[in-house]
Amino acid sequence: MKEKIAVLGAGSWGTALALVLADNGHDVYVWAKNEERMAELNTDHTNSRYLPDISLPETIKGTTSLAEALEDVETVVVAVPTKAVREVAQQVVESAKAPVTVVHVSKGIEPDSLLRISEMIEQEMPETILKDVVVLSGPSHAEEVSLRHPTTVTVSSKSAEAAQKTQDLFMNQHFRVYTNPDMIGVEIGGALKNIIALAAGISDGLGYGDNAKAALITRGLAEIARLGTKMGANPLTFSGLAGIGDLIVTCTSVHSRNWRAGNMLGQGKKLDEVLESMGMVVEGVRTTKAGHQLSKKYDVQMPITNALYHVLFEQQDPKKAVDDLMARVKKHELEDLIDILDTKLD
Amino acid sequence: MKEKIAVLGAGSWGTALALVLADNGHDVYVWAKNEERMAELNTDHTNSRYLPDISLPETIKGTTSLAEALEDVETVVVAVPTKAVREVAQQVVESAKAPVTVVHVSKGIEPDSLLRISEMIEQEMPETILKDVVVLSGPSHAEEVSLRHPTTVTVSSKSAEAAQKTQDLFMNQHFRVYTNPDMIGVEIGGALKNIIALAAGISDGLGYGDNAKAALITRGLAEIARLGTKMGANPLTFSGLAGIGDLIVTCTSVHSRNWRAGNMLGQGKKLDEVLESMGMVVEGVRTTKAGHQLSKKYDVQMPITNALYHVLFEQQDPKKAVDDLMARVKKHELEDLIDILDTKLD
Repeated sequence: MKEKIAVLGAGSWGTALALVLADNGHDVYVWAKNEERMAELNTDHTNSRYLPDISLPETIKGTTSLAEALEDVETVVVAVPTKAVREVAQQVVESAKAPVTVVHVSKGIEPDSLLRISEMIEQEMPETILKDVVVLSGPSHAEEVSLRHPTTVTVSSKSAEAAQKTQDLFMNQHFRVYTNPDMIGVEIGGALKNIIALAAGISDGLGYGDNAKAALITRGLAEIARLGTKMGANPLTFSGLAGIGDLIVTCTSVHSRNWRAGNMLGQGKKLDEVLESMGMVVEGVRTTKAGHQLSKKYDVQMPITNALYHVLFEQQDPKKAVDDLMARVKKHELEDLIDILDTKLD
Repeated sequence: MKEKIAVLGAGSWGTALALVLADNGHDVYVWAKNEERMAELNTDHTNSRYLPDISLPETIKGTTSLAEALEDVETVVVAVPTKAVREVAQQVVESAKAPVTVVHVSKGIEPDSLLRISEMIEQEMPETILKDVVVLSGPSHAEEVSLRHPTTVTVSSKSAEAAQKTQDLFMNQHFRVYTNPDMIGVEIGGALKNIIALAAGISDGLGYGDNAKAALITRGLAEIARLGTKMGANPLTFSGLAGIGDLIVTCTSVHSRNWRAGNMLGQGKKLDEVLESMGMVVEGVRTTKAGHQLSKKYDVQMPITNALYHVLFEQQDPKKAVDDLMARVKKHELEDLIDILDTKLD
């Protein structure tokens, strides 16, 4: 079934997902506020700012009118930075004429409220407008998706039907979509991996090697899983695509902006300089604040998250932070991991 | 307590571990058959073949006499390729005058017998000579260890005392050693990750990206854990340093010879050419044969291992193999993972 689908946000990920949907024969309306970018999409069929060198299908249309984008759509893909999610959800409520399913692809946790993205969307959108919320996550650099390189992702929703529908919309030969009923785990894994990617980038920026980075990723996965299971996730999700899969790709690829930001911090740059020079949102910075708060709220040991919090927000020396992490005195490695299974077995 | 320790094998890993032990103040005797290499070690304090540009401590001595290396030692580090383990164990039996603890650092499974390295050593060495066997494994490229970059490894043994002693011998500021009582898991994780590294290399060699590689690593970890738990391992071990940690470093680093071999296969080279041009042992090739046999013996689905078996030993096209893996029709990702926990909970 081909249909009209709205993609809100014309960053690299929104544009790459629009391309997948267009490849599958759907009519895709990309909405963004930037008039120049939408004009470029409609005339040149490119998004030179975020996906240079990629020719986009002509069935992708750009619009700055949210009402136009939302007209007659059942599915709205929300691909905006975490901190823009609430505002965009409010705008959808204002402009949508019928209930929609929101597929969100953002990765973060809101500081202070400590809500996941789907929870923020549910807060902003009444049930009369919001049919279901679905999260799509996994190891998926937009640049590679736009080149149609093989990619696997996970979708999750409280509604099995909505998850299945989303799977059907996106699935194709290059873009493999799996379902996982554990929405908490999928959202937590996607959000918290950005913290570990910042830490991995710092380690690389300090000139440490792949051994140190692998240790950080391994310990990082353990602390994400410890927190996630306490929040109600299935621990197995963290062994899957939205857990270790996404963590690996974000920590080891030069495409990853969180890794790149960490790398500059490791080389001695200040946080302000780094964020300025990136020109894109570095989700991990806000997520570190949220992760630090979650660690306290749920009383879970999260040494990497907390070390990073001290580096980002309390001017701790990055080298001292990583050295301390590597030298932690725990001597039995299963101690780190056993809590996860204990939680599961409770 | 400083002591004399023998390291058998003067490849990159044996030499790097000798350096760690020498840094800790021990008298290290490296044994290898190559007279020229041992002379270089004693006069220039280098191993230019396997660790170029590294100055080794003068407390490392090279010898071609196994009897000299073993005299008055309690701990023997065996750092030889898997297929040389039995022969070296036999030679130790002939030359040792008192019982020794063997710390092995090889990563493989013997085809046909399907034995782990520690089991092969136990078969070859009578209890009168073999006090204990310890395995040391984890994400640890020799090149980085020799540069004293931060590295973490796991040691495991049936004897908690022997594991503890090994931890004390190797532990220092740069080289962090953890213990894990699950010897089966530590040995299986170290061995089977080389299969996945070959597959990841093939994917990279085909020009696929980080998304595809992350998917292979994620699914690879699941199949290693499925097999390992059936063989009696603790599933948590595969979430630790000897599991996902070592898997990540082996699949994402250009230092990894298994990844490099896979990469050449992906670029269209034949297995014979690849092995010839490597000039070092590619453990993953033999381990793929063993993994294929283990998959049948324990009736465990191991799609990546079996696809690689067809590529290496039955001339299947690498591109077709990877494309088939990416396109497997499983739709629910937890299906892949749930067996692991089921096994644990049995």
